[in-house]
Amino acid sequence: MSHATLFLVTRPVSVEGVLDDAQRAAPDFLPADPAEPQLSVLDLGVSRGDGCFESISVVRGHAQALESHLERFAASARRLDLPEPDLDVWRAAVHAVIQAHVPVPELFVKMMLTRGIEGANAPTGWVYAETAPDFREARTTGIRVVTLDRGYRHDVNRTSPWLLQGAKTLSYAVNRAAIREAHRRGANDVIFVSSDGIVLEGPTSNLILLDGGRVRTPQTDLGILAGTTQASAFEFFESRGLRTEYATISADELERADAAWLVSSVRQAAPINAIDDRELLVDGPLTEGLNEYLLARQE
Amino acid sequence: MSHATLFLVTRPVSVEGVLDDAQRAAPDFLPADPAEPQLSVLDLGVSRGDGCFESISVVRGHAQALESHLERFAASARRLDLPEPDLDVWRAAVHAVIQAHVPVPELFVKMMLTRGIEGANAPTGWVYAETAPDFREARTTGIRVVTLDRGYRHDVNRTSPWLLQGAKTLSYAVNRAAIREAHRRGANDVIFVSSDGIVLEGPTSNLILLDGGRVRTPQTDLGILAGTTQASAFEFFESRGLRTEYATISADELERADAAWLVSSVRQAAPINAIDDRELLVDGPLTEGLNEYLLARQE
Repeated sequence: MSHATLFLVTRPVSVEGVLDDAQRAAPDFLPADPAEPQLSVLDLGVSRGDGCFESISVVRGHAQALESHLERFAASARRLDLPEPDLDVWRAAVHAVIQAHVPVPELFVKMMLTRGIEGANAPTGWVYAETAPDFREARTTGIRVVTLDRGYRHDVNRTSPWLLQGAKTLSYAVNRAAIREAHRRGANDVIFVSSDGIVLEGPTSNLILLDGGRVRTPQTDLGILAGTTQASAFEFFESRGLRTEYATISADELERADAAWLVSSVRQAAPINAIDDRELLVDGPLTEGLNEYLLARQE
Repeated sequence: MSHATLFLVTRPVSVEGVLDDAQRAAPDFLPADPAEPQLSVLDLGVSRGDGCFESISVVRGHAQALESHLERFAASARRLDLPEPDLDVWRAAVHAVIQAHVPVPELFVKMMLTRGIEGANAPTGWVYAETAPDFREARTTGIRVVTLDRGYRHDVNRTSPWLLQGAKTLSYAVNRAAIREAHRRGANDVIFVSSDGIVLEGPTSNLILLDGGRVRTPQTDLGILAGTTQASAFEFFESRGLRTEYATISADELERADAAWLVSSVRQAAPINAIDDRELLVDGPLTEGLNEYLLARQE
């Protein structure tokens, strides 16, 4: 059923001190059969959602914004008090799993790091690649979104770091429940709003608004993930002569936007054609240019 | 390292319609080696923390409050839009894993249900038993706790059900981060307080206060888990002639409490000897009576 390509990362975190001969000789990652069980049911990744991940878009064999993803992965691990991931190992594992996957125009790679089995003090890591879903309709016709309360004030990341806002953790049940709520309301996706009315992000994406000629995204000190795709999208808009800014955006301002997109690593830029009950015009040529730019990224 | 006893639950959710002969012949659960990998890394339980669980205390072979745990497990599954777990199968699996475990005075059983592999439409389930840690010190000397902001308003369970408050999900990274924050502050455990100053629960426990002869616990419509152990503790206090009540308790009232406990399935009743910087007296005889009552439960 699944056509994933899997590598287990046998040395996911930096080793303290100097490697001995056996450690040096052991491979840092190994291919594994994704159709077979590979994980202990006692792993805290599954019993507690205790770990972090990244999703990376791979277009024509090129892993997009890989260094940004690696940096964000390390930041999530720090936020979770996990040992420091060895980014050289992970970078090589990502390249290896791409090489091993059947060549397709678009695939994605997930990097996953868990705290491992309780008490074992040995984090678990793996990377896998899968062929990307066909997102052409989302990228052109666009998506309907609903706004949903994220429950937290906009400043909890500063006041209450244990809430892990801004870390990309494996505890994503709420993000998935929000998407199901969107489906119940006849929509495809979600824009989270803080309990005090500040626009945040999607469950797996960042929001970009076009408003009176300015391109805006919620500032990243609101406990939202700094978007790797959002950063590239800003480069595109700047190349078109548009002013870009990180801002505190109220739900009211969302209502006044001329155009809006949810951007993320694998789907790239999905234009929003409705927010709650308000229809929004999709700027077809601008969106097409944006997705062409994103898909052509070589950095 | 681990001495877990594991059964994979092969028919974790109710089957639609009548079982065919092959389905009837297949066992509902099977013993498995917990030292071997049993789970796909593609399971949404690990990649998204997408599932629910229960922890059940087993004292001298008796699973305590099993029916309450089964009901809460089904309620969590409904909250997550998972298929209905077949409680007859789970009940039998819990009994089987207890029988298979080395007999010890206290062990615990975890029931775990995940959404399974994305798109496969086949939830994954397992139960495992482990010898309980030695909680004698926590049950007598007691625990230091800190109050931490839970980030959500007290009424978020009613306004925003997609936040899954009150469901016991596998997305517990925040609960574990809160415990680490408590350790950094020199404490053992946490009492979560809502963003609007209402006392909620511990990350894996319920709070009970003794206040002017009344025994109080936060009411369960605050998006907190209805505690199976808390319900039994109320029976104990009522048998001692104390009045019990479910109440909306402010953080100020917490400061005035004469005594307090965090109660949970496996640790049972841990008396609180300090909240933040305030020392609290532990009522030794009352706490001992409470734990004897909880450990003797046969229902």
